[in-house]
Amino acid sequence: MEIIFLGTSSAIHSYSRSHPAIIFKGFGEVMLFDCGESTQKQLIFAKVSPMKISKIFLTHYHGDHILGLPGLLQSMNFRDRKTPLTIYGPKGLNRVKKAIKLLNLYDFNFPLEFIELKNEDIIENEKYIIKTKKVNHSVETLAYSIEEKKKPKFLRDKAIELGVPIGPLFGKLHRGEQIEINGKIIKPSQVLGKPKKSKKIVYSGDTTPCEEMINFAKNCDLLIHESTYKKEDKNKAQKNFHSTAYDAANIAKKSNAKKLILTHISTRYKDNKDLLKQAQTKFPNTIIANDLMKIEV
Amino acid sequence: MEIIFLGTSSAIHSYSRSHPAIIFKGFGEVMLFDCGESTQKQLIFAKVSPMKISKIFLTHYHGDHILGLPGLLQSMNFRDRKTPLTIYGPKGLNRVKKAIKLLNLYDFNFPLEFIELKNEDIIENEKYIIKTKKVNHSVETLAYSIEEKKKPKFLRDKAIELGVPIGPLFGKLHRGEQIEINGKIIKPSQVLGKPKKSKKIVYSGDTTPCEEMINFAKNCDLLIHESTYKKEDKNKAQKNFHSTAYDAANIAKKSNAKKLILTHISTRYKDNKDLLKQAQTKFPNTIIANDLMKIEV
Repeated sequence: MEIIFLGTSSAIHSYSRSHPAIIFKGFGEVMLFDCGESTQKQLIFAKVSPMKISKIFLTHYHGDHILGLPGLLQSMNFRDRKTPLTIYGPKGLNRVKKAIKLLNLYDFNFPLEFIELKNEDIIENEKYIIKTKKVNHSVETLAYSIEEKKKPKFLRDKAIELGVPIGPLFGKLHRGEQIEINGKIIKPSQVLGKPKKSKKIVYSGDTTPCEEMINFAKNCDLLIHESTYKKEDKNKAQKNFHSTAYDAANIAKKSNAKKLILTHISTRYKDNKDLLKQAQTKFPNTIIANDLMKIEV
Repeated sequence: MEIIFLGTSSAIHSYSRSHPAIIFKGFGEVMLFDCGESTQKQLIFAKVSPMKISKIFLTHYHGDHILGLPGLLQSMNFRDRKTPLTIYGPKGLNRVKKAIKLLNLYDFNFPLEFIELKNEDIIENEKYIIKTKKVNHSVETLAYSIEEKKKPKFLRDKAIELGVPIGPLFGKLHRGEQIEINGKIIKPSQVLGKPKKSKKIVYSGDTTPCEEMINFAKNCDLLIHESTYKKEDKNKAQKNFHSTAYDAANIAKKSNAKKLILTHISTRYKDNKDLLKQAQTKFPNTIIANDLMKIEV
């Protein structure tokens, strides 16, 4: 799995930080989390084709997180996209959909679906499960987690020993379905090894530090948490429903995350050494995201 | 007067060319012509404060020319703008206004006016006159001209000789109003010198080469003309209601422009030497705009 930070600023962008957008590559898909203005520009610099994005997840509808969407969709259309795209987001997605339609003088020539998600919703297939959690921002905001589904090892010798003929029944058992051989029931648990450790990545969206995030990010491999302010600006963070770097580190610590990446950095600070230090005092395995930074998980 | 090209691409942007947007500085104002996505980012690089923009002129409502608008306006609001802003554009501006409203979860805290313009409309004050001309694109599109209004020199000695007392009547005459002194009418023409040569700048928007532009750009100091294609792609240019570099040069020549700047350059071409050469064979005083290029007129 690969994460590419396209934009890492908070509401006001800067020379070096674009508005929020994160690319997730994995399971043969390219997914986009948030889509601030200039996302399509950043995609060029990150060498990621917008045509390959299959799903877009929006955390909330503040401008800095969504205003790259109309342009991204129009560009896909202009380049003659035919493959389907699904856009997910919390309640209110219809408003964004209407605006996108008003700003586009043409019809979209590819299947485009908008799906509203609620707290603790689930999107899953054979390979992964994506979950939502309502967090605490000034407007309805969802955090997202992506977990890979790893099948336990199929114990081939064990299956043969139990009389399962080599063939499609192996697959059935591996997928978790029980089978019957000569009147004898064979359960998947009889031919499957221990569950493999699967990776979990969590993205907070905009939020104050909240209990919900601690549970949601439990034991994750990577927590990407907003970190708009320094500790000294805790009051501003609370007033504006955001987190400090220290808050983010505290959530990482309490949730037993393996690694923390700070993003959604206020561009008011000239350098971010303090921000990083403040987080690392609480949670040492922390880094700060920069635009176009790539991370393998 | 200063022109800064913020974005110079056509519909598909590239590493080096952003979507269309041009800054005009003059008469104590900063005006923006078109507002493609990433305009607010390019403003940072051009070191122009978005807070100083007083008027925005849109040529038409294709995404590449307007999708920077929602973000630019939200950023102005976020930075606590209080000064008024007027957005002008052809028929259909209401659709854009509605979309901007849908994408903004807050009210704008500065006076924001949207004014639809028609063919041969005029916006003027003491210092300048801005005119519109409907051109030939696939959707309603307006070209704009900006002309400075230069008052002729006030012949002070002549006024004194005619018995005008030193004081506010001088101003009245200079503004073009006639006055009466002891029953004697004094006309402005009696105390004003020859009209001064005033500068004229014309921006085509997206258009096929058309007669209207020739007349509209007559004797201008600078013609900024779209130049999407090379001569070899004339068919594509016609089909998509655009111009080639040669077309633009032809318009510059026929309108007796002093200088031509090509913009709205298709990013399909690896380099633009041919594009420039093709224009210069017809109109030698031609340059190609690049992002962040500044020109004094």
